[in-house]
Amino acid sequence: MRATLIYGAGDIRIGEVPDPSLQKPTDALVRVLRACICGSDLWPYASKPTTPDGDRIGHEFLGVVEEVGAEVAGFKRGDVVVAPFVWSDGTCDFCREGLQTSCRHGGLWAQGGVDGGQGEAVRVPQAEGTLVKLPAGEDHALLPSLLTLSDVFPTGYHCARTAGVSDRTTVTVIGDGAVGLSAVLSAKRLGARRIILMGRHKDRTDLGREFGATDVVTERGEEGAEKVRELTRGDGTHAVLECVGLEQALDTAFAVVRAGGTISRVGAPQYEKISFGFPGFFRNITLTGGAAPARAYIEELLPDILDGTIQPGRVFDRTVALDQVPDGYRAMADREALKVLIQP
Amino acid sequence: MRATLIYGAGDIRIGEVPDPSLQKPTDALVRVLRACICGSDLWPYASKPTTPDGDRIGHEFLGVVEEVGAEVAGFKRGDVVVAPFVWSDGTCDFCREGLQTSCRHGGLWAQGGVDGGQGEAVRVPQAEGTLVKLPAGEDHALLPSLLTLSDVFPTGYHCARTAGVSDRTTVTVIGDGAVGLSAVLSAKRLGARRIILMGRHKDRTDLGREFGATDVVTERGEEGAEKVRELTRGDGTHAVLECVGLEQALDTAFAVVRAGGTISRVGAPQYEKISFGFPGFFRNITLTGGAAPARAYIEELLPDILDGTIQPGRVFDRTVALDQVPDGYRAMADREALKVLIQP
Repeated sequence: MRATLIYGAGDIRIGEVPDPSLQKPTDALVRVLRACICGSDLWPYASKPTTPDGDRIGHEFLGVVEEVGAEVAGFKRGDVVVAPFVWSDGTCDFCREGLQTSCRHGGLWAQGGVDGGQGEAVRVPQAEGTLVKLPAGEDHALLPSLLTLSDVFPTGYHCARTAGVSDRTTVTVIGDGAVGLSAVLSAKRLGARRIILMGRHKDRTDLGREFGATDVVTERGEEGAEKVRELTRGDGTHAVLECVGLEQALDTAFAVVRAGGTISRVGAPQYEKISFGFPGFFRNITLTGGAAPARAYIEELLPDILDGTIQPGRVFDRTVALDQVPDGYRAMADREALKVLIQP
Repeated sequence: MRATLIYGAGDIRIGEVPDPSLQKPTDALVRVLRACICGSDLWPYASKPTTPDGDRIGHEFLGVVEEVGAEVAGFKRGDVVVAPFVWSDGTCDFCREGLQTSCRHGGLWAQGGVDGGQGEAVRVPQAEGTLVKLPAGEDHALLPSLLTLSDVFPTGYHCARTAGVSDRTTVTVIGDGAVGLSAVLSAKRLGARRIILMGRHKDRTDLGREFGATDVVTERGEEGAEKVRELTRGDGTHAVLECVGLEQALDTAFAVVRAGGTISRVGAPQYEKISFGFPGFFRNITLTGGAAPARAYIEELLPDILDGTIQPGRVFDRTVALDQVPDGYRAMADREALKVLIQP
């Protein structure tokens, strides 16, 4: 079959890889209907060392079950399913607690002999724990919004939830990428009474306003932080949703969070150390968040997507076939596209 | 009157300072019955630059009201009162939220013309918001335990509370100083099902066991972390209470916290940057805590002290008169004394 491979920074190609087949009775085979490119795929796209054989890539997909192993209950050929960006058994203590990203028998796509999501098909390990059946046909109009359940929307939602967003909360969202916009949508869903979006791409912040942002701050760094403080009596907001992953974004988060408030980060950190010494300590700032256990949120978020209450799929502003995936990466890296949908 | 002054690292003296008097109608005058030396006083004792005139020091005290300003309701001459280590108005939004350390009209003892606690008397700003009346006489046997309400015990309690300790929680406490032992007592009070105390002073960890520690780990650093993991199936504990304030202690905290768990720190950070990049992010670790709003917890903790359920005052293992305070500092810095009570 054909799948996306990364050979190094800026070098994405479509190549032939072995057809997936069931290896364990807990596996399922899924033909991919929709996949997409994640903001986190842009980190290896920017910096991965040259890899002569190419590595698989992609961790967001939705598809049709083709075959299930003997130990996979609840799924049959023809089911439309979505897969979260970490596969997990669904039964260990971490899974039961809703932290499937730390599953004792789980793992990541495109690693250790597991397929990536940006291809024609995927062998799904621990399929019963991993997959969620969707009440949708192969040509459902909502497939793009349903696909966001694999990563980007639950990631924004995890950010808002771990930050404790409620109807008593003021919120700053840092970053107008697809995760930031998903965080806006999530904060709105949780009732946040004010949502300040920090971003400088007008088309994106416009979508952010439609998703629920009450204010947009286009300035960055200390200048942007000053604007947020001006909007909040000098205090900052109760919750700050850091959706970038760069140290500067986290510094901004500390500069706009109200005393006693919470910063949640869901942008994969591109740093090792952070500045969090006495000032943040004295102000009782909490830093939380992390890799979203998307699997934990899918059932909760699904109904609102199916009934049209929320449309997280609006973050997709370009659709490509598998052959065009390399250009899709380029377009996202150049900020020409917000988020690219793949229709293999 | 006489009060404690610090002239630089290792240089504590008792000197004459102006008698305090009411300056604002919101002030009260309190004659100090008991004060004490805080672990955080040892940081300037270790490193403060030479100060020719000496600076006031001390922020934990309990005393008798001598005089109240016209706007101070609820207190009268002769009341025995305890003061938390930050004074606060009790009426601003932060105080109402229970974050009196960020009071809009509050401040610290021994700074900006406000008396320190290690002296014969104190002018208490925002007295109505700050002070808590104790149902105790001047010679009450429980004065040491009641004095801990000013800082050390609520600091341990804040640590356990912000870490979310409950009867479903396993806990590691890092540090066997008075704050660490208070954190053990607090975790026990909140029902923690296992409390692992990391400390290497046997007399202190013995008291920790009496306070509720179920296990003691005497090794430090990675070796100690390995021991904690051995005790917990390799997972670490749900909550880690970091009661030291050094970077190494925080690194240990990250090494012993279970995925999805919470580190709370209440030791004043002696560092600017911390290591909290991708690994802690992927494991969904939360870092919380901060300067404890002691005032918020006093009413809650007071009954258990009065009825003898808990005895946080057992952290005091030495009592000195005001003249002996310099030796009290030396004894605490040399780890000869755990915590020194001052009886002016």
